[in-house]
Amino acid sequence: MQNTIRIIGIDPGLRRTGWGIIDTLGNSLRFVASGTVTSDGDMDLASRLCQLHDGLAEVVHSYQPDEAAVEQTFVNKDAVATLKLGQARGVVMLVPARAGLPVSEYAPNAVKKAVIGVGHGEKQQIHMMLKILMPKVEFKGNDAADALAIAVCHAHNRGASRLRQASLLAAAKAS
Amino acid sequence: MQNTIRIIGIDPGLRRTGWGIIDTLGNSLRFVASGTVTSDGDMDLASRLCQLHDGLAEVVHSYQPDEAAVEQTFVNKDAVATLKLGQARGVVMLVPARAGLPVSEYAPNAVKKAVIGVGHGEKQQIHMMLKILMPKVEFKGNDAADALAIAVCHAHNRGASRLRQASLLAAAKAS
Repeated sequence: MQNTIRIIGIDPGLRRTGWGIIDTLGNSLRFVASGTVTSDGDMDLASRLCQLHDGLAEVVHSYQPDEAAVEQTFVNKDAVATLKLGQARGVVMLVPARAGLPVSEYAPNAVKKAVIGVGHGEKQQIHMMLKILMPKVEFKGNDAADALAIAVCHAHNRGASRLRQASLLAAAKAS
Repeated sequence: MQNTIRIIGIDPGLRRTGWGIIDTLGNSLRFVASGTVTSDGDMDLASRLCQLHDGLAEVVHSYQPDEAAVEQTFVNKDAVATLKLGQARGVVMLVPARAGLPVSEYAPNAVKKAVIGVGHGEKQQIHMMLKILMPKVEFKGNDAADALAIAVCHAHNRGASRLRQASLLAAAKAS
Protein backbone atom coordinates (compact mmCIF):
# COMPACT_ATOMS: atom_id res chain seq x y z
CA MET A 1 0.00 0.00 0.00
CA GLN A 2 1.24 3.45 -0.86
CA ASN A 3 0.61 6.59 1.11
CA THR A 4 0.37 10.10 -0.18
CA ILE A 5 3.58 11.96 0.59
CA ARG A 6 3.48 15.74 0.89
CA ILE A 7 6.66 17.47 -0.28
CA ILE A 8 7.80 21.05 0.21
CA GLY A 9 10.32 22.34 -2.31
CA ILE A 10 12.30 25.45 -1.37
CA ASP A 11 14.35 27.84 -3.50
CA PRO A 12 16.41 29.81 -0.97
CA GLY A 13 17.32 33.49 -1.24
CA LEU A 14 17.88 36.28 1.30
CA ARG A 15 15.50 38.69 -0.41
CA ARG A 16 13.02 36.13 -1.74
CA THR A 17 12.65 32.47 -0.82
CA GLY A 18 10.23 30.53 -3.00
CA TRP A 19 8.25 27.57 -1.66
CA GLY A 20 5.99 25.03 -3.34
CA ILE A 21 4.01 22.14 -1.91
CA ILE A 22 2.82 19.08 -3.80
CA ASP A 23 1.32 15.71 -2.92
CA THR A 24 2.69 12.60 -4.58
CA LEU A 25 1.09 9.14 -4.69
CA GLY A 26 2.98 6.63 -6.82
CA ASN A 27 3.58 8.44 -10.10
CA SER A 28 0.83 11.03 -9.69
CA LEU A 29 1.49 14.58 -8.59
CA ARG A 30 -1.01 17.04 -7.16
CA PHE A 31 -0.44 20.76 -6.64
CA VAL A 32 -1.21 21.98 -3.10
CA ALA A 33 0.12 25.54 -2.72
CA SER A 34 3.02 27.84 -3.53
CA GLY A 35 4.32 31.25 -2.55
CA THR A 36 7.26 33.44 -1.70
CA VAL A 37 8.63 34.51 1.68
CA THR A 38 10.39 37.87 1.50
CA SER A 39 12.70 39.82 3.79
CA ASP A 40 12.95 43.58 4.08
CA GLY A 41 16.21 44.83 2.51
CA ASP A 42 16.19 47.92 4.75
CA MET A 43 16.45 45.84 7.93
CA ASP A 44 19.61 44.37 9.46
CA LEU A 45 20.71 40.87 8.53
CA ALA A 46 19.62 39.20 11.78
CA SER A 47 16.09 40.64 11.45
CA ARG A 48 15.89 39.54 7.81
CA LEU A 49 16.88 35.99 8.76
CA CYS A 50 14.11 36.08 11.39
CA GLN A 51 11.61 37.15 8.73
CA LEU A 52 12.61 34.23 6.48
CA HIS A 53 12.48 31.82 9.43
CA ASP A 54 9.08 32.95 10.66
CA GLY A 55 7.51 33.05 7.19
CA LEU A 56 8.72 29.59 6.25
CA ALA A 57 7.90 28.12 9.67
CA GLU A 58 4.32 29.33 9.19
CA VAL A 59 4.12 27.56 5.80
CA VAL A 60 5.47 24.31 7.28
CA HIS A 61 3.06 24.57 10.19
CA SER A 62 0.07 25.26 7.91
CA TYR A 63 0.67 22.55 5.31
CA GLN A 64 2.46 19.89 7.41
CA PRO A 65 4.68 18.46 4.66
CA ASP A 66 6.36 15.05 5.19
CA GLU A 67 9.62 15.72 3.35
CA ALA A 68 11.58 18.76 2.19
CA ALA A 69 13.83 19.42 -0.81
CA VAL A 70 16.13 22.42 -1.22
CA GLU A 71 18.05 23.56 -4.27
CA GLN A 72 21.81 23.09 -3.98
CA THR A 73 23.14 26.57 -4.25
CA PHE A 74 25.09 27.50 -7.32
CA VAL A 75 28.45 28.67 -6.03
CA ASN A 76 29.37 31.58 -8.24
CA LYS A 77 32.45 33.76 -8.20
CA ASP A 78 30.92 36.60 -6.19
CA ALA A 79 31.93 35.70 -2.61
CA VAL A 80 29.70 38.38 -1.03
CA ALA A 81 26.64 37.02 -2.87
CA THR A 82 27.62 33.46 -2.00
CA LEU A 83 27.86 34.37 1.68
CA LYS A 84 24.44 36.10 1.62
CA LEU A 85 22.84 33.14 -0.09
CA GLY A 86 24.56 30.77 2.34
CA GLN A 87 23.12 32.63 5.33
CA ALA A 88 19.59 32.47 3.89
CA ARG A 89 20.10 28.84 2.94
CA GLY A 90 21.20 27.89 6.46
CA VAL A 91 17.98 29.29 7.90
CA VAL A 92 15.85 27.80 5.11
CA MET A 93 17.24 24.30 5.72
CA LEU A 94 16.93 24.67 9.48
CA VAL A 95 13.15 25.24 9.44
CA PRO A 96 12.03 21.87 8.00
CA ALA A 97 14.86 20.02 9.79
CA ARG A 98 13.69 21.36 13.17
CA ALA A 99 10.15 20.25 12.27
CA GLY A 100 11.51 16.69 11.92
CA LEU A 101 11.40 16.50 8.09
CA PRO A 102 14.17 14.81 6.11
CA VAL A 103 15.78 17.51 3.92
CA SER A 104 17.18 16.48 0.52
CA GLU A 105 19.36 18.67 -1.68
CA TYR A 106 19.31 18.77 -5.48
CA ALA A 107 21.60 20.50 -7.93
CA PRO A 108 19.88 22.98 -10.30
CA ASN A 109 20.65 20.74 -13.27
CA ALA A 110 19.02 17.75 -11.60
CA VAL A 111 15.90 19.86 -10.98
CA LYS A 112 15.70 20.95 -14.61
CA LYS A 113 16.30 17.41 -15.81
CA ALA A 114 13.48 16.07 -13.63
CA VAL A 115 11.00 18.66 -14.92
CA ILE A 116 11.91 19.31 -18.56
CA GLY A 117 14.04 16.25 -19.37
CA VAL A 118 17.31 18.07 -19.92
CA GLY A 119 19.76 19.80 -17.59
CA HIS A 120 19.36 23.25 -19.11
CA GLY A 121 16.36 25.25 -20.25
CA GLU A 122 14.43 28.47 -20.06
CA LYS A 123 12.23 29.51 -17.16
CA GLN A 124 9.27 29.42 -19.57
CA GLN A 125 9.87 25.73 -20.30
CA ILE A 126 9.80 24.94 -16.59
CA HIS A 127 6.56 26.92 -16.15
CA MET A 128 4.97 25.06 -19.08
CA MET A 129 6.02 21.62 -17.84
CA LEU A 130 4.73 22.37 -14.33
CA LYS A 131 1.34 23.13 -15.93
CA ILE A 132 1.41 19.88 -17.90
CA LEU A 133 2.45 17.82 -14.85
CA MET A 134 -0.07 19.50 -12.52
CA PRO A 135 -2.93 21.14 -14.45
CA LYS A 136 -4.19 22.94 -11.34
CA VAL A 137 -0.79 24.44 -10.53
CA GLU A 138 -0.67 28.10 -9.47
CA PHE A 139 2.40 30.21 -8.86
CA LYS A 140 3.37 33.85 -8.94
CA GLY A 141 6.92 34.54 -10.07
CA ASN A 142 10.01 32.47 -10.75
CA ASP A 143 10.92 31.73 -7.12
CA ALA A 144 7.66 29.86 -6.43
CA ALA A 145 7.90 28.07 -9.81
CA ASP A 146 11.48 27.00 -9.07
CA ALA A 147 10.43 25.74 -5.65
CA LEU A 148 7.65 23.64 -7.24
CA ALA A 149 10.18 22.26 -9.72
CA ILE A 150 12.43 21.24 -6.80
CA ALA A 151 9.46 19.47 -5.16
CA VAL A 152 8.74 17.63 -8.45
CA CYS A 153 12.40 16.65 -8.70
CA HIS A 154 12.27 15.16 -5.21
CA ALA A 155 9.03 13.31 -6.00
CA HIS A 156 10.74 11.67 -9.00
CA ASN A 157 13.96 10.86 -7.17
CA ARG A 158 12.40 9.45 -4.02
CA GLY A 159 10.23 7.26 -6.30
CA ALA A 160 13.30 6.11 -8.21
CA SER A 161 15.25 5.30 -5.05
CA ARG A 162 12.20 3.42 -3.70
CA LEU A 163 12.01 1.41 -6.94
CA ARG A 164 15.74 0.71 -6.74
CA GLN A 165 15.37 -0.52 -3.17
CA ALA A 166 12.40 -2.71 -4.14
CA SER A 167 14.23 -4.29 -7.08
CA LEU A 168 17.33 -4.89 -4.95
CA LEU A 169 15.11 -6.59 -2.36
CA ALA A 170 13.44 -8.69 -5.07
CA ALA A 171 16.83 -9.64 -6.52
CA ALA A 172 18.09 -10.59 -3.06
CA LYS A 173 15.04 -12.78 -2.46
CA ALA A 174 15.34 -14.44 -5.90
CA SER A 175 19.00 -15.32 -5.48
CA MET B 1 22.36 55.07 36.64
CA GLN B 2 24.01 52.31 34.68
CA ASN B 3 22.85 48.74 34.41
CA THR B 4 24.95 45.65 33.88
CA ILE B 5 24.66 44.48 30.31
CA ARG B 6 25.27 40.82 29.50
CA ILE B 7 26.83 40.22 26.10
CA ILE B 8 27.20 37.00 24.12
CA GLY B 9 29.97 36.96 21.51
CA ILE B 10 29.78 34.29 18.83
CA ASP B 11 32.44 33.03 16.40
CA PRO B 12 30.44 31.07 13.81
CA GLY B 13 31.58 27.88 12.08
CA LEU B 14 29.78 24.80 10.74
CA ARG B 15 32.01 22.34 12.60
CA ARG B 16 32.72 24.48 15.67
CA THR B 17 30.93 27.64 16.82
CA GLY B 18 32.59 29.39 19.75
CA TRP B 19 30.58 31.40 22.29
CA GLY B 20 31.61 33.64 25.17
CA ILE B 21 29.52 35.56 27.68
CA ILE B 22 30.65 38.61 29.65
CA ASP B 23 28.96 41.21 31.83
CA THR B 24 29.84 44.87 31.31
CA LEU B 25 29.10 47.77 33.67
CA GLY B 26 30.58 51.09 32.55
CA ASN B 27 34.20 50.27 31.73
CA SER B 28 34.42 47.09 33.79
CA LEU B 29 34.21 43.65 32.27
CA ARG B 30 33.41 40.39 34.03
CA PHE B 31 33.79 36.89 32.58
CA VAL B 32 30.65 34.74 32.85
CA ALA B 33 31.11 31.62 30.72
CA SER B 34 32.46 30.33 27.40
CA GLY B 35 32.31 27.19 25.29
CA THR B 36 32.01 25.64 21.88
CA VAL B 37 28.99 24.17 20.10
CA THR B 38 29.97 21.47 17.62
CA SER B 39 28.20 19.65 14.80
CA ASP B 40 28.84 16.09 13.67
CA GLY B 41 30.67 16.06 10.32
CA ASP B 42 29.21 12.62 9.48
CA MET B 43 25.62 13.91 9.53
CA ASP B 44 23.79 15.68 6.72
CA LEU B 45 23.85 19.47 6.50
CA ALA B 46 20.29 20.03 7.78
CA SER B 47 20.95 17.92 10.88
CA ARG B 48 24.24 19.74 11.53
CA LEU B 49 22.46 23.10 11.35
CA CYS B 50 19.93 21.77 13.86
CA GLN B 51 22.77 20.76 16.19
CA LEU B 52 24.26 24.28 16.02
CA HIS B 53 20.82 25.84 16.55
CA ASP B 54 19.89 23.68 19.52
CA GLY B 55 23.29 24.01 21.21
CA LEU B 56 23.37 27.78 20.89
CA ALA B 57 19.70 28.17 21.84
CA GLU B 58 20.46 26.28 25.07
CA VAL B 59 23.33 28.69 25.85
CA VAL B 60 21.11 31.75 25.21
CA HIS B 61 18.35 30.24 27.31
CA SER B 62 20.73 29.40 30.20
CA TYR B 63 22.61 32.71 30.39
CA GLN B 64 19.93 35.16 29.16
CA PRO B 65 22.27 37.69 27.49
CA ASP B 66 20.93 41.17 26.61
CA GLU B 67 22.89 41.75 23.40
CA ALA B 68 24.74 39.62 20.85
CA ALA B 69 27.82 40.23 18.69
CA VAL B 70 28.93 38.03 15.79
CA GLU B 71 32.17 38.11 13.84
CA GLN B 72 31.79 39.37 10.29
CA THR B 73 32.89 36.47 8.21
CA PHE B 74 36.07 36.79 6.25
CA VAL B 75 35.08 36.17 2.66
CA ASN B 76 37.92 34.16 1.21
CA LYS B 77 38.42 32.84 -2.29
CA ASP B 78 37.14 29.35 -1.59
CA ALA B 79 33.45 29.59 -2.54
CA VAL B 80 32.54 26.18 -1.10
CA ALA B 81 34.02 27.14 2.28
CA THR B 82 32.31 30.55 2.11
CA LEU B 83 28.95 28.88 1.46
CA LYS B 84 29.42 26.45 4.38
CA LEU B 85 30.39 29.26 6.72
CA GLY B 86 27.45 31.34 5.46
CA GLN B 87 25.00 28.56 6.27
CA ALA B 88 26.36 28.18 9.79
CA ARG B 89 26.42 31.96 10.22
CA GLY B 90 22.77 32.30 9.16
CA VAL B 91 21.70 29.88 11.88
CA VAL B 92 24.06 31.43 14.45
CA MET B 93 22.62 34.93 13.87
CA LEU B 94 19.06 33.62 13.89
CA VAL B 95 19.23 32.19 17.41
CA PRO B 96 19.83 35.46 19.37
CA ALA B 97 17.65 37.44 16.95
CA ARG B 98 14.69 35.13 17.58
CA ALA B 99 15.30 35.54 21.32
CA GLY B 100 14.80 39.29 20.83
CA LEU B 101 18.46 40.32 21.21
CA PRO B 102 19.99 43.05 19.02
CA VAL B 103 22.77 41.40 16.97
CA SER B 104 25.83 43.49 16.04
CA GLU B 105 28.48 42.45 13.54
CA TYR B 106 32.20 43.22 13.80
CA ALA B 107 35.00 42.68 11.29
CA PRO B 108 37.89 40.47 12.53
CA ASN B 109 40.26 43.47 12.46
CA ALA B 110 37.91 45.53 14.66
CA VAL B 111 37.80 42.65 17.15
CA LYS B 112 41.61 42.41 17.30
CA LYS B 113 41.93 46.17 17.61
CA ALA B 114 39.48 46.26 20.54
CA VAL B 115 41.34 43.52 22.42
CA ILE B 116 45.05 43.96 21.59
CA GLY B 117 45.10 47.54 20.29
CA VAL B 118 46.06 46.74 16.71
CA GLY B 119 44.21 45.14 13.81
CA HIS B 120 46.53 42.16 13.49
CA GLY B 121 48.13 39.81 15.99
CA GLU B 122 48.67 36.26 17.11
CA LYS B 123 46.09 34.11 18.85
CA GLN B 124 48.43 34.03 21.88
CA GLN B 125 48.25 37.83 22.19
CA ILE B 126 44.45 37.70 22.25
CA HIS B 127 44.49 34.96 24.90
CA MET B 128 46.90 36.99 27.04
CA MET B 129 44.87 40.21 26.74
CA LEU B 130 41.64 38.39 27.63
CA LYS B 131 43.38 37.22 30.84
CA ILE B 132 44.51 40.77 31.63
CA LEU B 133 41.07 42.25 30.94
CA MET B 134 39.20 39.54 32.85
CA PRO B 135 41.46 37.75 35.37
CA LYS B 136 38.88 35.02 36.00
CA VAL B 137 38.45 34.23 32.30
CA GLU B 138 38.28 30.56 31.28
CA PHE B 139 38.20 29.18 27.77
CA LYS B 140 39.11 26.00 25.97
CA GLY B 141 40.40 26.46 22.43
CA ASN B 142 40.57 29.29 19.95
CA ASP B 143 36.86 29.38 19.03
CA ALA B 144 35.76 30.20 22.58
CA ALA B 145 38.60 32.73 22.97
CA ASP B 146 37.64 34.42 19.70
CA ALA B 147 34.01 34.56 20.83
CA LEU B 148 35.06 36.25 24.09
CA ALA B 149 37.15 38.75 22.09
CA ILE B 150 34.05 39.56 19.97
CA ALA B 151 32.04 40.15 23.17
CA VAL B 152 34.80 42.47 24.50
CA CYS B 153 34.81 44.34 21.17
CA HIS B 154 31.06 44.89 21.44
CA ALA B 155 31.40 46.06 25.08
CA HIS B 156 33.93 48.69 23.94
CA ASN B 157 31.96 49.81 20.92
CA ARG B 158 28.59 50.03 22.62
CA GLY B 159 30.30 52.08 25.34
CA ALA B 160 31.90 54.34 22.76
CA SER B 161 28.64 54.93 20.92
CA ARG B 162 26.94 55.64 24.27
CA LEU B 163 29.66 58.20 25.09
CA ARG B 164 29.29 59.77 21.64
CA GLN B 165 25.53 60.05 22.15
CA ALA B 166 26.03 61.58 25.62
CA SER B 167 28.53 64.20 24.35
CA LEU B 168 26.26 65.04 21.41
CA LEU B 169 23.40 65.54 23.86
CA ALA B 170 25.59 67.70 26.11
CA ALA B 171 26.74 69.74 23.09
CA ALA B 172 23.15 70.17 21.96
CA LYS B 173 22.12 71.35 25.43
CA ALA B 174 25.09 73.75 25.69
CA SER B 175 24.41 75.34 22.30
